[in-house]
Amino acid sequence: MKTAPLKGMRDTLPNEEALRTWLLNTILNVYRENGFFKISTPIIEDGENISHSDGGDNLNLVFHVLKRGEKLSAALEGLSKDETQDEVQNTLCDMALRYDLTLPLVRYYSEHKAALPSPFKAIQADQVFRAERPQKGRLRQFTQCDIDILGDSSTDCEIELLYVTSKALMAVGFKNFTININDRRLLKAALLNCGFEPDTLDAVAITFDKLDKIGSSGVCEELRVKSLPPKAIDKFALMIKKIEDTNKTPKTNEDLLSSFGSESETADIRRVISAAKGLSCGNFSIRFNPSLVRGQGYYTGLVFEVTVEGSKSAIAGGGRYDHMVEKFTGKPTPAAGFSIGFERIYSILEGDKNFSFPSARSRCALIYDDIPIEEVLQKKDELIKTMDVAIFRKAKNPAAQYKMLEAAGFTKFAVIKDSALIIK
Amino acid sequence: MKTAPLKGMRDTLPNEEALRTWLLNTILNVYRENGFFKISTPIIEDGENISHSDGGDNLNLVFHVLKRGEKLSAALEGLSKDETQDEVQNTLCDMALRYDLTLPLVRYYSEHKAALPSPFKAIQADQVFRAERPQKGRLRQFTQCDIDILGDSSTDCEIELLYVTSKALMAVGFKNFTININDRRLLKAALLNCGFEPDTLDAVAITFDKLDKIGSSGVCEELRVKSLPPKAIDKFALMIKKIEDTNKTPKTNEDLLSSFGSESETADIRRVISAAKGLSCGNFSIRFNPSLVRGQGYYTGLVFEVTVEGSKSAIAGGGRYDHMVEKFTGKPTPAAGFSIGFERIYSILEGDKNFSFPSARSRCALIYDDIPIEEVLQKKDELIKTMDVAIFRKAKNPAAQYKMLEAAGFTKFAVIKDSALIIK
Repeated sequence: MKTAPLKGMRDTLPNEEALRTWLLNTILNVYRENGFFKISTPIIEDGENISHSDGGDNLNLVFHVLKRGEKLSAALEGLSKDETQDEVQNTLCDMALRYDLTLPLVRYYSEHKAALPSPFKAIQADQVFRAERPQKGRLRQFTQCDIDILGDSSTDCEIELLYVTSKALMAVGFKNFTININDRRLLKAALLNCGFEPDTLDAVAITFDKLDKIGSSGVCEELRVKSLPPKAIDKFALMIKKIEDTNKTPKTNEDLLSSFGSESETADIRRVISAAKGLSCGNFSIRFNPSLVRGQGYYTGLVFEVTVEGSKSAIAGGGRYDHMVEKFTGKPTPAAGFSIGFERIYSILEGDKNFSFPSARSRCALIYDDIPIEEVLQKKDELIKTMDVAIFRKAKNPAAQYKMLEAAGFTKFAVIKDSALIIK
Repeated sequence: MKTAPLKGMRDTLPNEEALRTWLLNTILNVYRENGFFKISTPIIEDGENISHSDGGDNLNLVFHVLKRGEKLSAALEGLSKDETQDEVQNTLCDMALRYDLTLPLVRYYSEHKAALPSPFKAIQADQVFRAERPQKGRLRQFTQCDIDILGDSSTDCEIELLYVTSKALMAVGFKNFTININDRRLLKAALLNCGFEPDTLDAVAITFDKLDKIGSSGVCEELRVKSLPPKAIDKFALMIKKIEDTNKTPKTNEDLLSSFGSESETADIRRVISAAKGLSCGNFSIRFNPSLVRGQGYYTGLVFEVTVEGSKSAIAGGGRYDHMVEKFTGKPTPAAGFSIGFERIYSILEGDKNFSFPSARSRCALIYDDIPIEEVLQKKDELIKTMDVAIFRKAKNPAAQYKMLEAAGFTKFAVIKDSALIIK
């Protein structure tokens, strides 16, 4: 039997789990106080729903669940040697593990709409699965923490999502983060304006998304490798230069925005930036970032991503996805969501030696020796009113036991002497 | 796209999820206060670990995860048409979804023992998966809620597990439940004494477990169908009669116990019954139940199961499993656990019209009209200090909106008039 968890998966030790619990509960409390409703959906979804979704690259990372019983026998009968991997998966498997929480939410909303308030403001905090190549920092099972608003097309949604998410981030100790914001419609128009063909926009956007990492020369080089039209690349290079130049000056958002669209084309993003600025009270900043791409086939309007000094990856991200519900119900339904990168935040806090989360009650070890367990448990009940109490029989080596318990996070120690509790 | 969740799986509506959250947090708080440590392990485990475990019938209900990439190609190459389903699973799949939390816990303990306090008192509350034939009340994904003590062989463990579990059950509103208790060693001796062969004991026990459902004649009939020795069945029938007769008289535990073993053979169970009685303060009862079987290949000593009036299935169960850690580490390590049937309890509470859980804060809907969202959000922040607040734009039909929000559990309503909050 193997004792290690599978690669890319994680056991959590008690102190790690305590931090995770605090982190999750703190975020969930903010969401709940702000009027969002927690729901949950199964970890396993219908395989076809998953395969037919707008998952982009994530569809290559899906874990598929083998059919069972007669369905498996029939599938094996029908299996042909020259099927592709995708075909084999579809033949042999009927279910799959979800790769995000948005697809299940949209399915859920389509099924239960009549029983839900409208617009519906959902909280989800749950496990998702991606068959990433195992490497440091890449998890195959991880927690996502999302809020979404379904059934409302106004920018009030984006503003509320930004505000509530920023509250949650502040509640877990983040300050001075930046909310980057872009509009997929502006991005699309800008790329078309450079002269890229509509069917190449995704390829351009994937490269453009790397601007922060590989710089403008790197981006243009990659576009040349992708054999995109040199004229369009040149025009695109000028646009990037303008972005970079404007980034160096103040009034960034305004100046950049006017060069990316007319007053009416940029009305939504201006509205959200202005409202978010007012609500930020200087605790975070908001920045129009024309190179922010996010989620290829998925978002239809504003997109956002939260960055923080010292972390390369974003700590939260989201956007508007107005066409996803329609795939289930046939009816156009506006939707927008914001997801907190739970694992990213956990690993930042866990690695920060100056961070300690407020623990409500101290942890006490009640050491007993030759006293009947009934009496020990009753004595423990007295202590439980004010602290968390674990009982331990006195070890042969009390010094080693004390050391072990201290390492496990016990800060108080109690013994029973002549039927009385003595706390050290 | 299909909108319903897969059969045997469940979406939870907001009010259902709120009850589930309260239920889980209440149980977890009791566990934590009593000195147990929450941990977590991945939902996906190594396929061989699962297949080689003592899962009994559960091994037929495992969901297997298809290999990916080159591993899948190689597996398909090697697949032969005359493999059994088990062989096909082992060839094509490398991972599986856990069917319980005990196997992952034992793997976890074997891996992390050096970093954990000893004995280790663990809390787990997480999803498990079984490919049950979908039918009413049979879930394929469900929550288990376990406490376990690893590394302690004394009956103090059983007593503490019983006590803490009974506290958790009382905290969620159960009264007058019965903890049934048996000892696998007594059961084994009694069956051998009847004349059953050692290798048939599991088959006898599986039938014996049904005594409450099919009665003694039903049990004997099933044993005959299983072609067990008639003489042994006759002796067994006498034993059952004695159990049933003694059940009708008072002093049940004492009388029954003396007929099932010597003073020393019944010392453990007597000790636990006596301690639990003392700790119960009359809030629950404890009963020696010689027909309690539980978990075929798994338990080695005391086993327990909690029953409650009005529910056919047990609401909690557990026992001692002293040989499971050894399969991972090679070293004998005593262990015992108690699992609360979360889904069972949830469905009892959910179906009880007289039950309502204490909700800390009331839920308020703040309705706004032509006020900028920034102002609405800031007004909301004033209310959030004392209640959970959701904002809704005023609908064209306010009466219908009000009705919808009431149905969704909102008990307070607020509006903004001349920049002032008015709560109704």
